Amino acid sequence: MTGRFISLEGGEGVGKSTQLRRLAEALRGRGLEVVETREPGGSPGAEAIRRLLLEGADERWTAEAEALLFAAARADHVARTIRPALARGAWVLCDRFLDSSLAYQGGAGGLGGEAIRSLHEVGSHGFLPDRTLLLELSPERAAARLAVRDAAGSDRIGGRGADYHAGVAAAFVALAEADPARFRRIDASGDADAVTARLLSAIEDLS
Amino acid sequence: MTGRFISLEGGEGVGKSTQLRRLAEALRGRGLEVVETREPGGSPGAEAIRRLLLEGADERWTAEAEALLFAAARADHVARTIRPALARGAWVLCDRFLDSSLAYQGGAGGLGGEAIRSLHEVGSHGFLPDRTLLLELSPERAAARLAVRDAAGSDRIGGRGADYHAGVAAAFVALAEADPARFRRIDASGDADAVTARLLSAIEDLS
Repeated sequence: MTGRFISLEGGEGVGKSTQLRRLAEALRGRGLEVVETREPGGSPGAEAIRRLLLEGADERWTAEAEALLFAAARADHVARTIRPALARGAWVLCDRFLDSSLAYQGGAGGLGGEAIRSLHEVGSHGFLPDRTLLLELSPERAAARLAVRDAAGSDRIGGRGADYHAGVAAAFVALAEADPARFRRIDASGDADAVTARLLSAIEDLS
Repeated sequence: MTGRFISLEGGEGVGKSTQLRRLAEALRGRGLEVVETREPGGSPGAEAIRRLLLEGADERWTAEAEALLFAAARADHVARTIRPALARGAWVLCDRFLDSSLAYQGGAGGLGGEAIRSLHEVGSHGFLPDRTLLLELSPERAAARLAVRDAAGSDRIGGRGADYHAGVAAAFVALAEADPARFRRIDASGDADAVTARLLSAIEDLS
């Protein structure tokens, strides 16, 4: 028995964390073992790397070092958490995965997709989700949600400017269009129940 | 005016740190600015990554994650310490550089040279030393030196078995033979003055 690996992607404030929890609940209601995880992090080594990535000033790391640290955290997460869970038949729901590195460091950060993919090839042997759910929201709505959530301030990457985040959104759309078998684009507006229903419908074929 | 970048390589216990200090003194005696540095580390970000790499149990990181962390530390070190020093005309002496990753993670660790070079291409745009001095000592002599130095115990990588270290030594020789323009193989036996004289002679053409 092999589980399923599903990643949730999208910019800041589109509701990934909330929807991941709701999706996990729904799948558990069907009797599945569900592992909820997130990147960067999701294993002890990757969480240690996460602290290096998200703390400190924005200019703490060059784009190159940042991409390598994300790939290192991902390699640890895949080897220590995701693959073992899939091997025992669990469904793994992951808040961000490779596509976030492609959109953030590769696209908006300027390193290019080929460089990011080559790091993923070395670190994780190119391992990909069975399905990637791209949550989409207009920039205005995402900003409004973030204003509520981040009244206390954002982290190193979430705190970057509007141009950076617009570049990220465009990069996600391009990724989804390039791999329609793996990606589903999900309208993340409206009430939470409706969004969860759209997500469940977008993974129905994996059961 | 551009400086020179010289790396010292070799297995554990061949005397790299001692000789690096002596070489730096000799070059300073000629009126040069000399920066002494080492890997992993050599810049604040890289030193933080160094702690992740050298602390903890041997199985803390997979070979893949370890290689990515070394490449991340190197990218930071090159961008923040080595390139700025070279740009102002300093000579940079570095205790270990890319070739250690090729010999340790690529050779003895089994990832292969191509993977390690691709990480270096992304992280540091393939940046290489002007000269690499490979210090060589018989395994018996290196072990004897280590027994004195490491009576208090070794770190995660130095503490690996004899087979691993024999693989590292063989990998260094293969690297030196593949790039004779950059490498010089240095007999590290005998008294320290004699070894320093050999090292100085092996960089004479760079002045």
